[in-house]
Amino acid sequence: MSQVYADRRVRLRDRCAAAGSTAALVSRPANVRYLAGGSPPGAVLLLGPAEDVLLCPVAPGGDPAQGRLDEDLRLTLLTPGAALGDPAVAAVDEARRAGADSLAVEEHHLTVARHRAMGSVAPKLRLADLAGAVEQLRIVKDEDEIACLRIAAEIADQALGELLESILVGRTERHLALELERRLVDHGADGAAFPTSVGTGPNSGRSGHRPTDRRVEEGDFLSVCLGANYRGYRSEIGRTFVIGTTPADWQIELYDLVFAAQRAGREALAPGAEYRDVDRAARQILDGGGHGEAVEPRIGHGVGLEIDEDPQLAPSAMGKLDACVPVTVEPGVHLPGRGGVRIDDTLVVRQEADGGPELLTITTKELLAL
Amino acid sequence: MSQVYADRRVRLRDRCAAAGSTAALVSRPANVRYLAGGSPPGAVLLLGPAEDVLLCPVAPGGDPAQGRLDEDLRLTLLTPGAALGDPAVAAVDEARRAGADSLAVEEHHLTVARHRAMGSVAPKLRLADLAGAVEQLRIVKDEDEIACLRIAAEIADQALGELLESILVGRTERHLALELERRLVDHGADGAAFPTSVGTGPNSGRSGHRPTDRRVEEGDFLSVCLGANYRGYRSEIGRTFVIGTTPADWQIELYDLVFAAQRAGREALAPGAEYRDVDRAARQILDGGGHGEAVEPRIGHGVGLEIDEDPQLAPSAMGKLDACVPVTVEPGVHLPGRGGVRIDDTLVVRQEADGGPELLTITTKELLAL
Repeated sequence: MSQVYADRRVRLRDRCAAAGSTAALVSRPANVRYLAGGSPPGAVLLLGPAEDVLLCPVAPGGDPAQGRLDEDLRLTLLTPGAALGDPAVAAVDEARRAGADSLAVEEHHLTVARHRAMGSVAPKLRLADLAGAVEQLRIVKDEDEIACLRIAAEIADQALGELLESILVGRTERHLALELERRLVDHGADGAAFPTSVGTGPNSGRSGHRPTDRRVEEGDFLSVCLGANYRGYRSEIGRTFVIGTTPADWQIELYDLVFAAQRAGREALAPGAEYRDVDRAARQILDGGGHGEAVEPRIGHGVGLEIDEDPQLAPSAMGKLDACVPVTVEPGVHLPGRGGVRIDDTLVVRQEADGGPELLTITTKELLAL
Repeated sequence: MSQVYADRRVRLRDRCAAAGSTAALVSRPANVRYLAGGSPPGAVLLLGPAEDVLLCPVAPGGDPAQGRLDEDLRLTLLTPGAALGDPAVAAVDEARRAGADSLAVEEHHLTVARHRAMGSVAPKLRLADLAGAVEQLRIVKDEDEIACLRIAAEIADQALGELLESILVGRTERHLALELERRLVDHGADGAAFPTSVGTGPNSGRSGHRPTDRRVEEGDFLSVCLGANYRGYRSEIGRTFVIGTTPADWQIELYDLVFAAQRAGREALAPGAEYRDVDRAARQILDGGGHGEAVEPRIGHGVGLEIDEDPQLAPSAMGKLDACVPVTVEPGVHLPGRGGVRIDDTLVVRQEADGGPELLTITTKELLAL
């Protein structure tokens, strides 16, 4: 497994070298994890100019092996002393001593204050911008990463399926969300991929709704959005249900519309498809139904080591999908005061010859009356 | 209640004016909440030069009132258009148009990339550093804030107390942590103040230990650290127990040592006491017991809208405690391979005439054998 991380680092080094930097400092935690196989809190990763070094604020697990090469990870572990407490500052000093003349850093992650402290420890070392180079590498996943996402999606399906078998009326959004999170862990998740959202009645269909003490009532829409974190990889699934025996006409209409939009978005997923065309495929159906104003600024996004990664499936996004890119497709409509519908899947973009988009979250999207 | 926030903003404006800035931009979420009474995701707060403006990426709850003064909050709500998507960039433009010549920003929170985008939208506007001005204001709490902390501590005491009445042997750290978090919400918390830590056997006593699938066994130390978030204010409590009928001698010895250190730390809390003297009071007892090496770099820290605020109770911290400053006192010793003890309370510094330090977390600190 460690070869994977070493290979990723080689690819990043190549990019840096092409951009004129002999060394790079990675500080964003998901990026550190992607390149080093783990990210102890506060750790930063220095690539080159000679060896690769993982600098941690405290030695992981009180590991006495610091300063030595970790053969498995092919990384040297260092715990800077108190004098250079911030590992990023210590890393700059390390790069200077190793003879680097330019160090590419993550300006979209480092604060102004931290960047200044880094600059002052080695005034002659030029700090360049690594920008989103690691995030770009992370977009296309390998099959091991997709396998983790597949398990993460399966866990969320299981948790959701069990919830649907229980009595829902009278329970609060908050309790349903907590129960889902417990079930995620029961089924092997390292935790929730993001705060579980449960919305009932007027709260249903709202993106990122934080669960309240509102109780589920007969006739409500109930919308649920959850995901599992499995070995760092995060899935996302969203479904909307109706509580009671018979949905109202407006509920069926709205559901059918959002379902049609979501299907159009899924069907637009293909290698070579423009991000914004996927967005438009779903959006134009909601627009056609007269709900253009109520639609979120984007229809989906990438998932992986973070729940919200590139690509963005949005009207102004530039770029094209590749095979092996996992994304969400999650259109929704929320009508203030009444509630709404959101349907959300995690899929992997695949060639048509490979069967087209691979659906990871397989819970039914029929409108269930619970 | 809104007067409180307006008063806080006046105090910050006064500080900025004294430092030569006619306007300030607050972006750190806890700081925005402190000054505006709430912090919608991604919102930033612009103070002056004329009115105070809360800029949100999306209108809170689809509120159509944007651009108008919120009478209750005494704030104008703005949702910038897509052209200036980042509210911080829009705020800079707003400050420029309102005639500010200098804008103090939070350089310890803004990333380099974001700061650059802000600079480029108004090149003639000087961006100064607000540094930790809001964090400094937040250190001393008013009685309403302390009342929230008191409830947050009570909730954590209740959740912990219920856990102690249940069967523990055979359950995993992960499940115990989840159950504690559920109980926090049952008792009225908005959520956990931080990820609940449960450590058994060799994992006990480790600061910030992430719960694993290890099961509680007879003879284990079991250490638990949790807290409630109540209206944004966060408590913290940590206790260590022994599983089984009779603790081993080494367990009793270690417990007594940490307990003595924790008591010394609590007793050192007084207005005017140096931060580092509180740290030393506890640390020297652990040192005396031969465990100096195993002790964390600090003995405690402030709590409030964030679980880890100033002041830091650490050997190199500069400053003195004031009355009405809530802090944790949480010494611990972890012996690799064997486990350890951590005892953690949240207290409010009070004058001796007012009865001395006010203990918010009242669960017993006797060594319980469960």
